Amino acid sequence: MRVLLSGFAPYGEDHVNPSWEAVRRLDGIQAAENVTLFATRLPVVYGEAIKRLISSIRVIRPEVTIAVGQAGGRMQITPERVAINVSDAPIPDNAGRVLTDKVIISDGPAAYWSTLPVRKIVRAIKDLGIPAGLSNTAGTFVCNQVFYGLMHELSHSGQTKIGGFIHIPYIPEQTLDKLAPCLSLDTITKALKRAAVVSAEALMPEHKFTEIN
Amino acid sequence: MRVLLSGFAPYGEDHVNPSWEAVRRLDGIQAAENVTLFATRLPVVYGEAIKRLISSIRVIRPEVTIAVGQAGGRMQITPERVAINVSDAPIPDNAGRVLTDKVIISDGPAAYWSTLPVRKIVRAIKDLGIPAGLSNTAGTFVCNQVFYGLMHELSHSGQTKIGGFIHIPYIPEQTLDKLAPCLSLDTITKALKRAAVVSAEALMPEHKFTEIN
Amino acid sequence: MRVLLSGFAPYGEDHVNPSWEAVRRLDGIQAAENVTLFATRLPVVYGEAIKRLISSIRVIRPEVTIAVGQAGGRMQITPERVAINVSDAPIPDNAGRVLTDKVIISDGPAAYWSTLPVRKIVRAIKDLGIPAGLSNTAGTFVCNQVFYGLMHELSHSGQTKIGGFIHIPYIPEQTLDKLAPCLSLDTITKALKRAAVVSAEALMPEHKFTEIN
Amino acid sequence: MRVLLSGFAPYGEDHVNPSWEAVRRLDGIQAAENVTLFATRLPVVYGEAIKRLISSIRVIRPEVTIAVGQAGGRMQITPERVAINVSDAPIPDNAGRVLTDKVIISDGPAAYWSTLPVRKIVRAIKDLGIPAGLSNTAGTFVCNQVFYGLMHELSHSGQTKIGGFIHIPYIPEQTLDKLAPCLSLDTITKALKRAAVVSAEALMPEHKFTEIN
Repeated sequence: MRVLLSGFAPYGEDHVNPSWEAVRRLDGIQAAENVTLFATRLPVVYGEAIKRLISSIRVIRPEVTIAVGQAGGRMQITPERVAINVSDAPIPDNAGRVLTDKVIISDGPAAYWSTLPVRKIVRAIKDLGIPAGLSNTAGTFVCNQVFYGLMHELSHSGQTKIGGFIHIPYIPEQTLDKLAPCLSLDTITKALKRAAVVSAEALMPEHKFTEIN
Repeated sequence: MRVLLSGFAPYGEDHVNPSWEAVRRLDGIQAAENVTLFATRLPVVYGEAIKRLISSIRVIRPEVTIAVGQAGGRMQITPERVAINVSDAPIPDNAGRVLTDKVIISDGPAAYWSTLPVRKIVRAIKDLGIPAGLSNTAGTFVCNQVFYGLMHELSHSGQTKIGGFIHIPYIPEQTLDKLAPCLSLDTITKALKRAAVVSAEALMPEHKFTEIN
Repeated sequence: MRVLLSGFAPYGEDHVNPSWEAVRRLDGIQAAENVTLFATRLPVVYGEAIKRLISSIRVIRPEVTIAVGQAGGRMQITPERVAINVSDAPIPDNAGRVLTDKVIISDGPAAYWSTLPVRKIVRAIKDLGIPAGLSNTAGTFVCNQVFYGLMHELSHSGQTKIGGFIHIPYIPEQTLDKLAPCLSLDTITKALKRAAVVSAEALMPEHKFTEIN
Repeated sequence: MRVLLSGFAPYGEDHVNPSWEAVRRLDGIQAAENVTLFATRLPVVYGEAIKRLISSIRVIRPEVTIAVGQAGGRMQITPERVAINVSDAPIPDNAGRVLTDKVIISDGPAAYWSTLPVRKIVRAIKDLGIPAGLSNTAGTFVCNQVFYGLMHELSHSGQTKIGGFIHIPYIPEQTLDKLAPCLSLDTITKALKRAAVVSAEALMPEHKFTEIN
């Protein structure tokens, strides 16, 4: 089984994006007996990000796709429950575009549920001693657009492939000059690896994978 | 040179106190060329905690004493600037005692400054990529009482020994069932080791110690 | 035109629910030239709350329905953008029921958009000098269930009636023994009155109502 | 009895400072049977602020002096317990001056206690239904400098005059474009009036003043 993890390029003035830093460490890893991880990097650009993710999906043909993004200010690893059909943020994407109340897919439904086993992921990450919680909003910036676009793609692919989105906090080096919570890159990476394995397991419920450390 | 680090026993229902978990990992370590670290564990009990710390100081005779305590809710390693002469908290200590507006040392001054090089410590910890900041209040619970008692003791010892207090955040395992920021135990331990070396250096400004990893 | 505002009964140990305190002050008020406000009180009970609201709608036949609920911890008046088809909370409702990942309407869509002019409401409230912001999650407790049920009802009524949900902060008296932000009841009431008028105006865009103070 | 309340001019880009807006509404008010309030406005400038306050004290000869300042981000009315002998802030005062670890009064003690009945003030404000709490740090910007300078002056005046500092939150109009807690100007003004009366009472413990509304 193949699990594709996407991370984002640094946003704005930032030099680093922990979502990419974490998933690139997992690229090519065999995370469990027959679970291999792949990583792909998305630009923080409306439209471009989801196009890039769908291209990677077509090449890699993963059974599970987990898009990962930074949610500065959060304290936990937060699998997202639902993607909504709107882009709307006062801040520009990395191409300088600002969107206001813009529908993502004009004939799409108001929302798509994540098809990842989000509750099991939360439990499994907490079992590692890492703070995690279910989130009910992925915002309305590029993260949510990628998440919505991903679920739209998967819902039309006619295959039993699953996917969703996980938001992660800052890493320590991003919080040296601002007061914000963080988790270490090691901790985040470990949590995402676990999420990948738990998601793959969900597709083969009769089998419990032995995770490879 | 000897640096004594104190940590606290778990408070209330908690099973762990990151202050003790961190400093006990440093016990007996040679942190730099001629800087040896010692750790001692204090009860979260008014009066008892400072007595225990002073006993350890008399046995170990450290040049630098750094008391460490947990400040749940903080996001950074925070060296404290000032200890104040009052104990006052609605919550009981581990002996069940609640103090309200209680003077710590009846003829003591309103406050003592930390004699640690707090600003240098902040800078050195941030240079490790770990969030740190100067704090202007150590609260008025057992932490502040230990800090005030320590500074009172040092101010009367007639020797050029320095000391102070550093508050640390929760560790991840403490934040599984509550929404609060944390830093990993490794990160906290690394920061405290650096604080110890920087403090020892401050007593010998002509010499810059090579830290031993 | 009739605007129906619903508020909730006190939750759990609370003696007061600011949502009901605010909307009951508006009951029977002529808020603008031809805009009359009505208030109804809902129990904090899954199922019962939405039934009660729909009953009130059938009796009062409002052109605009605004359900209002308390969101302890928020700092602004927050019109909600979207209701999602799930009830899921670790805390019990006032009948002692705990729901986990429970679909609200089994053949309903994942989400409904608010049909209130949420952006205009935010702007109009801020123009009064009151903090307001658009929210992307109404949570998954009784508030969201009422909101989802309301939008489902309105979407099937075949009439050009609009509705939605607004979350409000605590009032000061609720924050005496906990550290949480609040807005005064006067402020909240004024904001909700303005939201009602702005929503009614949205149905008759050619006409701008003179608000009656 | 005379109570002098000081407030600050707007800081930086702000158009309003709630400390001055509140105390100027109390200027000339007879707050209780024989308690008259006076208000004075201080610049947000190191050195100048305390000079201005001491000038006002010499003219008005109040029995009670309460300096009031804005603490953006706080949620309560917070009487300060202690002033410390240092000015240290990364942000400039309104004259453009940045101070780092600068002693306020070179031969002064590390700290002065407030001589206001801070605990009684907290209780009295909460009795009005307004959130209040004791604070252990007035920061190290101009507010603390004024507070420390005031306590130094009073401690050398040889008279039974009392004084201290109260920090207040933002008012709503300041939080339209940033996410921060606030209290209404009415609420803040009411709380400060109560603090003034409670402080005056503390000087005449045998007498309980009837507050004039």
